[in-house]
Amino acid sequence: MTYASHYECTLCHRRYPFDGVMTSCPACGDAGILDIAYDYAAMGRTVTKAYFEHNSDFSIWRYLPLLPIAGTRHEETLRTGWTPLYETKRLAAAIGLNRLSVKDDGQNPTASLKDRPSAVAVLDAIARGYDTVACSSTGNAASSLAGQAARMGLKAVIFVPKRAPVGKLNQLLAYGADVIMVEGDYKDAFRLSKQAIAHYGWYDRNAAINPHLVEGKKTVSLEIAEQLGWDVPDWVVVSVGDGCTVAGVFQGFHDLFMLGITRRMPRILGVQSTGCQPFVTAAVRGGPLVECEEDTIADSIAVGIPRNPIKARRAVDASGGAWIAVSDTEILAMMKLLGSTEGIFGEPAGVAGLAGLKAAVERKVVRPDERVVGVMTGNGLKDPANAKKAVGTPALLKPDLQELIDYMDRKNDKGCVR
Amino acid sequence: MTYASHYECTLCHRRYPFDGVMTSCPACGDAGILDIAYDYAAMGRTVTKAYFEHNSDFSIWRYLPLLPIAGTRHEETLRTGWTPLYETKRLAAAIGLNRLSVKDDGQNPTASLKDRPSAVAVLDAIARGYDTVACSSTGNAASSLAGQAARMGLKAVIFVPKRAPVGKLNQLLAYGADVIMVEGDYKDAFRLSKQAIAHYGWYDRNAAINPHLVEGKKTVSLEIAEQLGWDVPDWVVVSVGDGCTVAGVFQGFHDLFMLGITRRMPRILGVQSTGCQPFVTAAVRGGPLVECEEDTIADSIAVGIPRNPIKARRAVDASGGAWIAVSDTEILAMMKLLGSTEGIFGEPAGVAGLAGLKAAVERKVVRPDERVVGVMTGNGLKDPANAKKAVGTPALLKPDLQELIDYMDRKNDKGCVR
Repeated sequence: MTYASHYECTLCHRRYPFDGVMTSCPACGDAGILDIAYDYAAMGRTVTKAYFEHNSDFSIWRYLPLLPIAGTRHEETLRTGWTPLYETKRLAAAIGLNRLSVKDDGQNPTASLKDRPSAVAVLDAIARGYDTVACSSTGNAASSLAGQAARMGLKAVIFVPKRAPVGKLNQLLAYGADVIMVEGDYKDAFRLSKQAIAHYGWYDRNAAINPHLVEGKKTVSLEIAEQLGWDVPDWVVVSVGDGCTVAGVFQGFHDLFMLGITRRMPRILGVQSTGCQPFVTAAVRGGPLVECEEDTIADSIAVGIPRNPIKARRAVDASGGAWIAVSDTEILAMMKLLGSTEGIFGEPAGVAGLAGLKAAVERKVVRPDERVVGVMTGNGLKDPANAKKAVGTPALLKPDLQELIDYMDRKNDKGCVR
Repeated sequence: MTYASHYECTLCHRRYPFDGVMTSCPACGDAGILDIAYDYAAMGRTVTKAYFEHNSDFSIWRYLPLLPIAGTRHEETLRTGWTPLYETKRLAAAIGLNRLSVKDDGQNPTASLKDRPSAVAVLDAIARGYDTVACSSTGNAASSLAGQAARMGLKAVIFVPKRAPVGKLNQLLAYGADVIMVEGDYKDAFRLSKQAIAHYGWYDRNAAINPHLVEGKKTVSLEIAEQLGWDVPDWVVVSVGDGCTVAGVFQGFHDLFMLGITRRMPRILGVQSTGCQPFVTAAVRGGPLVECEEDTIADSIAVGIPRNPIKARRAVDASGGAWIAVSDTEILAMMKLLGSTEGIFGEPAGVAGLAGLKAAVERKVVRPDERVVGVMTGNGLKDPANAKKAVGTPALLKPDLQELIDYMDRKNDKGCVR
């Protein structure tokens, strides 16, 4: 069962009874992104601190009563969530903080945070009788959908543009998805996927705005809060593309606050790349978002027209948070810094939040004594080409001990042996 | 504390008191691989089924009392182990078994089973006062050592041959290891690393035969047994290179049997590639292992001169198991089959065990009604080039619905739409 009670349109604020199916406001169309409201009084009779103390399911499904799905066959999915939250002392010291933790969501089954909503998507598809799920993407949404679908015995059809990097196709093809490479750009792939989904009646995972799927993302916050013993941090930092993840991060803390399990909300730092920063620009200039270029190596957050602007801006505004943008150079530097100080290897969009945190500390947006959690959203193994840009090339030496000793001495003189 | 009581040489059977430092038999030299023996009577007063029921540490450290280290700062390592054990019904049906589970060790922090011994290695290094760890490798031993070292604030120096694939260097460099690329082949890199380790007094992770590290690998079996409710399967399947992993797999089940927690041992199926199968050849012909070519895409098990032959052969022989070899073609086919039926993406050496299991069922070595667990040792994201060989390329279509419908019809006619 679910404690979801009704939908409320974020644009016109009309309310609709909860049916588990509605994906946007009938009055406002696709722009009418829906909130899902819960009966917290009823939920609170089940969901208490004690409920979690006696829960031995260490995956996102320990939070099933907080989700808008009933959870048919949830115990069969790839094991998703309950990723490690590391206290990161060396990284904290390097960027000037006293207390910093990193949530390593690259440890999810297909190696990104997107496994959370995709796990919800496949259960939703099964509950509603679909045997095929589809979307157009070359990124983590597609690979997580393909992986979770394979695990549950569903077919997956994924539409990708011709320029899709071969490396990113490997996961999709390995998971046995029908991958349709479309002669054209992303918009062509998206359009064909919409036509095909309508023609065949497949389950539509394109709808990143689908509120049921976005709710899957909030499990990352539920875990952070529980892993900190329900002690909410001062800031939570996350990179922002279409706005769904930052909305989910907010929603998780909101649920716990409404249930009385936590006593306050964290401030949310939304981080974009300077190569694609519609939210940051809108925050500075005021007014609505303006479409912008998508010129960044952090492909998972290269979204020139964010699909979920209202929820994303509300998350930052309502939490008393802030927006910040960082360059690709800063992102690549953070890949190296995070890996070398903490042994966590992230893809560019995965570490962009932490790069933004470093900048926010330098600009005194975040104070050194504030407790911070950074969400690392994807594994560095997903993007070998950009990883290479971050890490450089190794020293090449003759197989001679004296040459090695000279090399190590030179490095030590420069103070750059770590 | 540890319950390790003494070492026993696998060659000459001399015994030595346990000191936590000895790596091979003083009388036999490097070939004198040591067993670590435990005081099971004393261990059994702590380690019982009830002990695990009340243990909330879901990592390899829940098994700390079964390891030969005291565990200084063990709670700070990358979260290692307690990887998912999936009941894999679709894969089982595809290869003709009733009950098959897959242990997905690609879900470890640096994406391979090697995180288990490397976590033990960094704790051992810390306990013994080292600040730098070193090894020569381009594979999972190196990346797991570099990641675990970074997490614990140790320096890592990794020696690689010049031919090391750039992709495999990314993880090492991202983790901030000093990577020394040696002009020459693997033997040159190994030799220089030994000289440098002796010169600088670094901790030596080259010693794959180091019995303390091999014990870290046995945690995979401890988890399998516990995840099955202490109900030991009929067979456990694992790919074999130098022989340390299969030895660890045996040792974990042996410990539980000696403690009386389990009632029997599983049979162990050791799987090699036909391109490098010294164990399989020796099993067929009898007598000692003979050096062979290393001609396989499964690089993690491409070991022409296995370093741990006695323990590996004993694991298979003493368990009443079997040896089998599979071709690279069969390995690549299993990458695709495992991914598409279960959503688990493995590297070639990672899925080689399951490819061998399929062959063993076909040859009636393993019966359909026997319960089997396959150990999947490494994530497919680690090796993009070979993944591409397994998965092929996607269909390229014009952005036209009718063309898509025709394509899907053709696939359906061929019966190859999944």
